Amino acid sequence: MQKRSLETRSRILSTSLDLFSALGYEKTGVSLICERSSVSKGSFYHQFPSKHAVFTTLLAQWLGDLDRQFDLDFSSASDVPSGILAMTGEFGRIMMVSRPYLPLFLEFWLQSIRNPEIWQQTIAPYQNYVDRFAKIFRQGVAEGSIQPVDPDDASLALIALALGLLLQNMMIPEGRDWPSVSENVISLYLNGIKGVSNA
Amino acid sequence: MQKRSLETRSRILSTSLDLFSALGYEKTGVSLICERSSVSKGSFYHQFPSKHAVFTTLLAQWLGDLDRQFDLDFSSASDVPSGILAMTGEFGRIMMVSRPYLPLFLEFWLQSIRNPEIWQQTIAPYQNYVDRFAKIFRQGVAEGSIQPVDPDDASLALIALALGLLLQNMMIPEGRDWPSVSENVISLYLNGIKGVSNA
Repeated sequence: MQKRSLETRSRILSTSLDLFSALGYEKTGVSLICERSSVSKGSFYHQFPSKHAVFTTLLAQWLGDLDRQFDLDFSSASDVPSGILAMTGEFGRIMMVSRPYLPLFLEFWLQSIRNPEIWQQTIAPYQNYVDRFAKIFRQGVAEGSIQPVDPDDASLALIALALGLLLQNMMIPEGRDWPSVSENVISLYLNGIKGVSNA
Repeated sequence: MQKRSLETRSRILSTSLDLFSALGYEKTGVSLICERSSVSKGSFYHQFPSKHAVFTTLLAQWLGDLDRQFDLDFSSASDVPSGILAMTGEFGRIMMVSRPYLPLFLEFWLQSIRNPEIWQQTIAPYQNYVDRFAKIFRQGVAEGSIQPVDPDDASLALIALALGLLLQNMMIPEGRDWPSVSENVISLYLNGIKGVSNA
């Protein structure tokens, strides 16, 4: 892709992210995206087949960044509980940095429930996280740093905590230190399932 | 209120619940609600000042039902962990029964973030749950059935788990037995914070 084309693409993406977050997915039209990013409709459709494609590209970027960061956090940890705590620290930071975009995350979820095409693109990364954390807990049980819990349930619980913390952070943007709350809450959970060697 | 007026009101509410769930809050207009519930606009506005009022009335009803049921579950339990497990059973049942309306729950959340008036009406019951569960955990610590955890963190964790389970259930409506998953996940959490007398 040429430099100018890449610039156009990235301008469309960042403008759309702002508009989706502020107005919601439904109320953001291609015309408005074009107007605000100073891009012609021709250029827009040269880059993306639809608004929906912009939406899923944003999702893929966001999840890709998250994945790389989680891998980095986890690979430098000494055992499974400390790896999860390192990811929790990262999660707290990301939650604060992405605060303006958190409603968009809820939009993704809603769109996925209502639109089978978007669901297909959301379910894969969700299932990927379920499997990834189940594998991590299995590793923890094997190394003795995690009690012999069901790795699948442990993974669903961790994901539930993360999703539930995101929702509460959206509802109460101020007055609580959400990164600290996240650490306390995940620790409370981890302390209960830590192996004896870590008690 | 006269019988006929009550019937009209209840028909508006149930039609709106269906429409909000199927189409979303934004796309559901007062005209459509009136058409589908065979009610004139005059009758509608006699009952509710706005679509927004219908929305918050539905929220208040749903939360009221939940509260009464939770109180019932908890009052018949022998200690705090069993009380929370009884509520979890209830939560699992409600999650399945309200499945068609769960997207509406996400809409409430999104609307609350974007609309200060709706936020005011959502934040009160949310805060009420935070305080209620904190009080329950404080009682558990006092009676020795819960380890000396921070009651506030324990409450936020429990609410995070419930919200995160709801979100995951919406994403994967089939293929997992969510009431069982909920029991396993909440048990995993409770087992970690149970007092020695319950170990």
